[in-house]
Amino acid sequence: MARAIALAAQGRATSQPNPSVGCVIVRDGEIVGEGFHARAGEAHAEPQALAQAGERARGSVMYVTLEPCAHHGRTPPCVDAVIAAGVRKVCAALTDPNPQVAGGGLAKLRTAGIDVETGLLCDEAERVHRGFLSRMRRARPWLTLKLASSLDGRTAMANGESRWITGDAARVDVHRLRAEAGAVLTGSGTVLADDPQLSARGIHSVRQPDRIVLDAAARTPLTAKVWAAGARRFWFTADDGPAPADVERIVVPRAASGLAPDAVLAELARREVNEVLAECGPTLAGGLLQSGSVDELVLYVAPSMLGHEGRPLARLPGLETLDRRLRLRWQSIERIGDDVRLTLIPHS
Amino acid sequence: MARAIALAAQGRATSQPNPSVGCVIVRDGEIVGEGFHARAGEAHAEPQALAQAGERARGSVMYVTLEPCAHHGRTPPCVDAVIAAGVRKVCAALTDPNPQVAGGGLAKLRTAGIDVETGLLCDEAERVHRGFLSRMRRARPWLTLKLASSLDGRTAMANGESRWITGDAARVDVHRLRAEAGAVLTGSGTVLADDPQLSARGIHSVRQPDRIVLDAAARTPLTAKVWAAGARRFWFTADDGPAPADVERIVVPRAASGLAPDAVLAELARREVNEVLAECGPTLAGGLLQSGSVDELVLYVAPSMLGHEGRPLARLPGLETLDRRLRLRWQSIERIGDDVRLTLIPHS
Repeated sequence: MARAIALAAQGRATSQPNPSVGCVIVRDGEIVGEGFHARAGEAHAEPQALAQAGERARGSVMYVTLEPCAHHGRTPPCVDAVIAAGVRKVCAALTDPNPQVAGGGLAKLRTAGIDVETGLLCDEAERVHRGFLSRMRRARPWLTLKLASSLDGRTAMANGESRWITGDAARVDVHRLRAEAGAVLTGSGTVLADDPQLSARGIHSVRQPDRIVLDAAARTPLTAKVWAAGARRFWFTADDGPAPADVERIVVPRAASGLAPDAVLAELARREVNEVLAECGPTLAGGLLQSGSVDELVLYVAPSMLGHEGRPLARLPGLETLDRRLRLRWQSIERIGDDVRLTLIPHS
Repeated sequence: MARAIALAAQGRATSQPNPSVGCVIVRDGEIVGEGFHARAGEAHAEPQALAQAGERARGSVMYVTLEPCAHHGRTPPCVDAVIAAGVRKVCAALTDPNPQVAGGGLAKLRTAGIDVETGLLCDEAERVHRGFLSRMRRARPWLTLKLASSLDGRTAMANGESRWITGDAARVDVHRLRAEAGAVLTGSGTVLADDPQLSARGIHSVRQPDRIVLDAAARTPLTAKVWAAGARRFWFTADDGPAPADVERIVVPRAASGLAPDAVLAELARREVNEVLAECGPTLAGGLLQSGSVDELVLYVAPSMLGHEGRPLARLPGLETLDRRLRLRWQSIERIGDDVRLTLIPHS
């Protein structure tokens, strides 16, 4: 199953909106077939692995990160292929929360006399499929908030100068996060200040991430780099109006500051966005954190101090006493080149 | 030698102003004697180890973290004892920068026909003796600046509330740092706000650290807890005046903000203070950092965010462009209970 999860991780950046299922077929203690779902419309993991195994699939055990599908989508149901191949046992890490599957695949396998087991390495499988699972279960994408600061929590000098606080390795790591998430979200303040591309560069990626701009007052210029072709582009505003070609302008309600994050995430889920990486300034970062929209915080810390006049990491208005502070729990702490990457999960 | 350094570390909190030298005697591949210098006036490491070894010292190899002394201090010269015991070879990690020793001990050993080698694990020995070496070489103590903040670099809420941002384990760790340093330094702002004891509590310590208060305007009340008996107490002010019983009031020049750190450190070295742990607010922390007085920064980071209105980690006035930022390099990154301890060395 560990191998199946590693295979799933390989498809993560490209399989959206589908889950990048990984599959391994074992016969007599030997791997006879494996596969992962790389792109919607292309073969699922199970038929790939079965094709590789050929006749050796008969009597084998199949390890798969997610319950095989039982419905006709862009490809025929996987369970039929599993049954036809004579697989003896199927170990699925997770059942599929997709209402079109939801246990139906496993039930069909059992009816056909195949042993079925679930739960093996389910935490790891949850992690690799977190975007798809979040969209299916909560009707919203998984949201990772990425921030970068000095040791004293400053993202820029008072004059806005911020290139570069973190080093090359951290910036490459961010491009990897963008590719894995498949969608990058920012605010109009960042677009106006930096005019970023928010693309995944310098790493092997067959697909550029969707671009999402939150912009209550519709201040983003139609010529901003973030609107460059080559990816889906969503412009969230409070009022309707014109948009650049192929940019979808989506109207959502306002919140205390900016737009309502819940509404934005619901609209993104409707557009089959599984996972979002937010890279933004202190106002939007604070708004996402305070609204409980952040599933994971990735903070790159550079070995420098910028002083009390530097720009803050997050604006958290109304937070006046220590017992109301925003609490998180550690996930990992790693050196990335000259910087440190702290990964945390907000307490719900 | 690694064992000798581990022994030296045991005496670190109590041997001031002397270095906590560690010594191991090996004969035929077996440790036959060991010792460390625990307290000024008591036996040095070498005679302790020789006494343990007895006759087995003859023809042995002695590993010692610092060059044995050749002068009469509070105890007789160690080199005489080493020679008398018939030790065959002495490996000293470091030569002693003390002008009263400075190679004289090793020279005397060589003259007596003993093999002498230096440099083995010298980096580790430098670390364990850093306070003594700093005072001898630079005529100033080693200064560690300890700070604690949230992920967004805040040490307290806007209203000053800061108890407790970090967890129990981090606070215990700070008491260990206080004991190891042997002296704790703070500013009058912290004394007025928190009235801290700055003692080493809850850990096995036979000696309470010296208390040092920097207080240009002499605002510290004579009744402050920091003046409690049981340790040496130094009150640095810009002008002379009365002081509590047994508190030494020391007048030093003013700096841009507060008192001149160089003058303070020179006065402390004159009083045989080897190592200082600074625990202070953002103004003094910034002043120490900007004056280049900080040898090591220990930053405890709690998994929380306090927001843009929280108090800053350090005031660094005049720092306006990114290329003038204060740069440091990583020493270590460790989990301490629920917090993370980042240790860094400022670029000189």
